Amino acid sequence: MNMNLAIYGYGNIGKGVELAALQNPDVKITGVFTRRSPEKVQTLTGLPVYPAAEITAHKDEIDVIIICGGSATDLPVMTPNLVKDFNVVDSFDNHSRIPEHYKNVEKAALESGHLALISGGWDPGLFSLNRLYASCVLPVGEHYTFWGRGVSQGHSDAVRRIEGVKDARQYTVPIEKALEEVRSGSMPELSTREKHLRECYVVAEEGADLERIEREIKTMPGYFADYDTTVTFISEEEMKRDHSELPHGGFVIRSGKTGLHKEHTQTIEYKLTLDSNPEFTSSVLLALARAVNKMAAAGRTGCITIFDVAPIDLSPLSREEIVGHML
Amino acid sequence: MNMNLAIYGYGNIGKGVELAALQNPDVKITGVFTRRSPEKVQTLTGLPVYPAAEITAHKDEIDVIIICGGSATDLPVMTPNLVKDFNVVDSFDNHSRIPEHYKNVEKAALESGHLALISGGWDPGLFSLNRLYASCVLPVGEHYTFWGRGVSQGHSDAVRRIEGVKDARQYTVPIEKALEEVRSGSMPELSTREKHLRECYVVAEEGADLERIEREIKTMPGYFADYDTTVTFISEEEMKRDHSELPHGGFVIRSGKTGLHKEHTQTIEYKLTLDSNPEFTSSVLLALARAVNKMAAAGRTGCITIFDVAPIDLSPLSREEIVGHML
Repeated sequence: MNMNLAIYGYGNIGKGVELAALQNPDVKITGVFTRRSPEKVQTLTGLPVYPAAEITAHKDEIDVIIICGGSATDLPVMTPNLVKDFNVVDSFDNHSRIPEHYKNVEKAALESGHLALISGGWDPGLFSLNRLYASCVLPVGEHYTFWGRGVSQGHSDAVRRIEGVKDARQYTVPIEKALEEVRSGSMPELSTREKHLRECYVVAEEGADLERIEREIKTMPGYFADYDTTVTFISEEEMKRDHSELPHGGFVIRSGKTGLHKEHTQTIEYKLTLDSNPEFTSSVLLALARAVNKMAAAGRTGCITIFDVAPIDLSPLSREEIVGHML
Repeated sequence: MNMNLAIYGYGNIGKGVELAALQNPDVKITGVFTRRSPEKVQTLTGLPVYPAAEITAHKDEIDVIIICGGSATDLPVMTPNLVKDFNVVDSFDNHSRIPEHYKNVEKAALESGHLALISGGWDPGLFSLNRLYASCVLPVGEHYTFWGRGVSQGHSDAVRRIEGVKDARQYTVPIEKALEEVRSGSMPELSTREKHLRECYVVAEEGADLERIEREIKTMPGYFADYDTTVTFISEEEMKRDHSELPHGGFVIRSGKTGLHKEHTQTIEYKLTLDSNPEFTSSVLLALARAVNKMAAAGRTGCITIFDVAPIDLSPLSREEIVGHML
């Protein structure tokens, strides 16, 4: 079952979907839909670019839209709107607002008879899956999520907003000692500070007060105050040379107990090590779009998440191939 | 949705299901069904024990049977037979014969209108899931499965059959160097010998020819000849003290490439560290039985595998709880 995908929004995630499609022969990209002037958007592989406002004119050429917008203001509007006419996938990642987004999308999707999958990617996404699988298998236990080592865009932006900062990159770093404690099965209670370090690389403007910048970073509430943070001032050249990629990753670890006297420790660990966070996220979204296409064809409507997707629907292979070679 | 489970066969896996039920308040065990004399079977938690032949008389008290038999001769007969009257879960783990078992069970299940899930556990099972998810997300890549460190029953039995061997325990050990190569993203081609070591602990009969035993182990075709194997002779006391548990575990690692020039390495690693292999396997089977119960209630029939199970169906929690707290 081949499928035609549309890319709605052409930032890092949109580009990632374009590249992921090259690796999936069952996928054809109908085009990129952008709110910018289409003439000004140059795609990596020469895809056609159309105005976002004209997407309904392409309805017959699109099986699923991957909506590549931001969670703060784009997706809460775009997803309920686009699901009126299309099956859609988004990567809404504001964890605390997921129930509200779910409800809005569900309502619009049921009204239109389309299918929407929200909050795809790796966290929320593959990490959520691992939290769920592991807690179903080991109900007596605890799960722990660690992020990094990787670039946090939100924290990098927060540093960039400080006066005298020209550019900044923030890495979230899991603390090895905490990982080891969790793996040991001791089910520790860990504070925010014990789980992650924050490393900042900062290009300061000429003559800026470096001590003040460092102090402002380290004491910034919500972002850095609860963490041990390092600040390293570097040159623009070093920033470009050493920090131009967007690596990320992390760990979901559940340790649980089984046995008549809970005498056996069982540990499940899931680990991602990603050279490119956006390309990986996009690769997950593409596989989810395949499942949405199959599930919609089978009559499913409304709002779903990765938890509702039978894994077999993510694959382009036949049941025979999967049962014969993957099990 | 509560469920009544039956345990069919009372070895290590049956006992594990009994213990797992203690951790899952939605599960009640109707009873243990055995081919032995029920009077001779003493359960860990005082469950009722019935003759296997009388199970159809308990039809109204059973939602799902977990069939805890061996893959060599039990399950190929038991699963197609029991699915005539019940929804069932088994842990058939002879990888090369899965397609044949699938076909037999599918036929019987469709005829009777029941649902069977075969090959549950961790390999096949959770490891299979990770191979599938990872290959759907990273189609350009390779996956690698490593087992251990853990006790292999089949290899332990093979050593025990050697003349002069009183008892034996075989540990399969993944080779760290191979793991590191795989994690690096270099996608190495690894021979059998490069991936795993085999460690044997042997209690010999008095006066036995230890050199001959060691030679027979190390050259045994199909079991040891293709591996580097160590043989350590120990006393019966040491065997009892140090080797009476059944730990196991392993790794599924997929490394893939993304990017216009495949310049980014992305690695997904799934790792199990298990103090008790049978208790963990049983915990997986119980979660799968919950899904079978829900899917059967929704009208699904035939033969399925873990690939067909939407993760949400494994959980006793509501959709609202899962979407709100796990995503």
